[in-house]
Amino acid sequence: MKAIGVDLGGTNIKAAVVDKEQGIIDQVTRPTKASLGKDLLLDRIGETISDLIKDHDIIGVGLGLPGMVSKDQTTVKNPPNLPGWTVVNAAEEITKRTSLPCRIENDANVAALGSLHFGAGKQFDSFIMITLGTGVGGGIIYERKLFKGTQGMAAELGHVIIDYHGPLSNSVTRGTVEAYLGQRFLSRFASDLISQNPSNPLYKSFSDDFDKLEPVDLTNAAKKGNELAIEILAKSGHRLGYAIINYVHMMDIRKFVVSGGVSKAGDFLFEPAREVIRKQMMEPFQEGFELVAENLGNDSALLGAAGLAFDSFS
Amino acid sequence: MKAIGVDLGGTNIKAAVVDKEQGIIDQVTRPTKASLGKDLLLDRIGETISDLIKDHDIIGVGLGLPGMVSKDQTTVKNPPNLPGWTVVNAAEEITKRTSLPCRIENDANVAALGSLHFGAGKQFDSFIMITLGTGVGGGIIYERKLFKGTQGMAAELGHVIIDYHGPLSNSVTRGTVEAYLGQRFLSRFASDLISQNPSNPLYKSFSDDFDKLEPVDLTNAAKKGNELAIEILAKSGHRLGYAIINYVHMMDIRKFVVSGGVSKAGDFLFEPAREVIRKQMMEPFQEGFELVAENLGNDSALLGAAGLAFDSFS
Repeated sequence: MKAIGVDLGGTNIKAAVVDKEQGIIDQVTRPTKASLGKDLLLDRIGETISDLIKDHDIIGVGLGLPGMVSKDQTTVKNPPNLPGWTVVNAAEEITKRTSLPCRIENDANVAALGSLHFGAGKQFDSFIMITLGTGVGGGIIYERKLFKGTQGMAAELGHVIIDYHGPLSNSVTRGTVEAYLGQRFLSRFASDLISQNPSNPLYKSFSDDFDKLEPVDLTNAAKKGNELAIEILAKSGHRLGYAIINYVHMMDIRKFVVSGGVSKAGDFLFEPAREVIRKQMMEPFQEGFELVAENLGNDSALLGAAGLAFDSFS
Repeated sequence: MKAIGVDLGGTNIKAAVVDKEQGIIDQVTRPTKASLGKDLLLDRIGETISDLIKDHDIIGVGLGLPGMVSKDQTTVKNPPNLPGWTVVNAAEEITKRTSLPCRIENDANVAALGSLHFGAGKQFDSFIMITLGTGVGGGIIYERKLFKGTQGMAAELGHVIIDYHGPLSNSVTRGTVEAYLGQRFLSRFASDLISQNPSNPLYKSFSDDFDKLEPVDLTNAAKKGNELAIEILAKSGHRLGYAIINYVHMMDIRKFVVSGGVSKAGDFLFEPAREVIRKQMMEPFQEGFELVAENLGNDSALLGAAGLAFDSFS
């Protein structure tokens, strides 16, 4: 069984033919050119799909994009980086152009579906995917289906509060986990601490311009035994742990898959998270708890978008 | 259609014949006598039910009790206040004694079912019930069914963290909403502030023994215009608001029904909660948000237990 997965980003449209067993078997990338407007962009997506399907028997299209997606997985509202898109039934527009059934879903949920169909989540019936990137996002898989909530907007995991006195992230909410683990916030937190430690090798590397410091630099330093880097990642891991306790106490889902750039810190982040969880999560929830890394990498969006089509049309 | 609802507490067994339209039509209360042991207690419950069903056509039994209940709603684990109960398939035991099918559920989830079938929750397909009592508990109704999570333990709402630096409640977790809004914690928080304000009327009433101060005293003082009492309830309401933001951002359920002794503070608590929510909950979740009080009172447990039977056997 084959489906088309499309990953619509601000820079590129990626599309792939995905086989349910073999994964990606054919793939194209085109620049998005979002500035040309909504209709031309939809045309470009349609043409990209039409080129790909020529040699294949395809059951349908799944499309991942930024923004809030309706519960019926057809309509997106105010997607960032796509000028002129206010409320668009993108599924219908794609079907008009390709004669294939289509469902759409936001990036974070698509990543969770990628994990469910092809990644670390394959082994779990229910799990929560946490994406630690520029922002902190997520998707909830409950009994092998996306949990969408009443209006389709569930799993704003990055905007769960762990300290109501805490700093703002890019949202209106104080002290959310994104305000600590979003890439920019983590980098800023690290820069603050490093700037007070002139003898630390990271000070020497970044004191000219702390804005260049990224989480990967912390991970690399931690691997070399830099104790300040280890401490910064550990504190961040603790905060991830508090957020995970909230998710578990709320929904009793005990499997976690973590992806995204910041997650590359691996056990420098995860072990401190597990430590907080062992200590502060209620005892009855400890049984069966697991926190694992996703390793699908960049293909995750295409695979998840195809997974959406498999779930919807097979 | 009629079912039996049973409310098994540490002090009393209450049982009622409940009509789906008319509510409670017949009711008995007996002392629990839990110290006599598990088997005799189950016998007493069985006899209580058998007495009630004589004149009625009954579809089944729903039983509410403290403790963690299995996902299939048959088995309870280590219920507090019931000595000798470790892991008990109470549903099976009741069926043996009454020849009626039976399901069990924990108190907090039963309260949510009571609201769904007979109370303020009747108007909502999905809502979260928050019980502000000695502890803070809750139940999640999603698409007119209890959301139980993977192992049946979802909705530990009182143990959701809002400040990871915060105080412990009776759990292992720091800074949970229960550590602020559980009756004892709210009273302690109030006593601390009142003890610093000797000119306040509440100081005069309680300085002999602050342990006697209860949330209802704050509400009564607030109604008389006591500004310190109003401030204490407002701060507590803000904390309730942060917890609710977490529930909404996580599950996209936007209707809240609040019950329990502390909720009698009404808008002294709810308006400050709504204020925090208007300000700090993400904009797309604001539409349709509602926070209302439950007014079923003490009947809620019996009605909810019967609701469990209606859901299970009709």
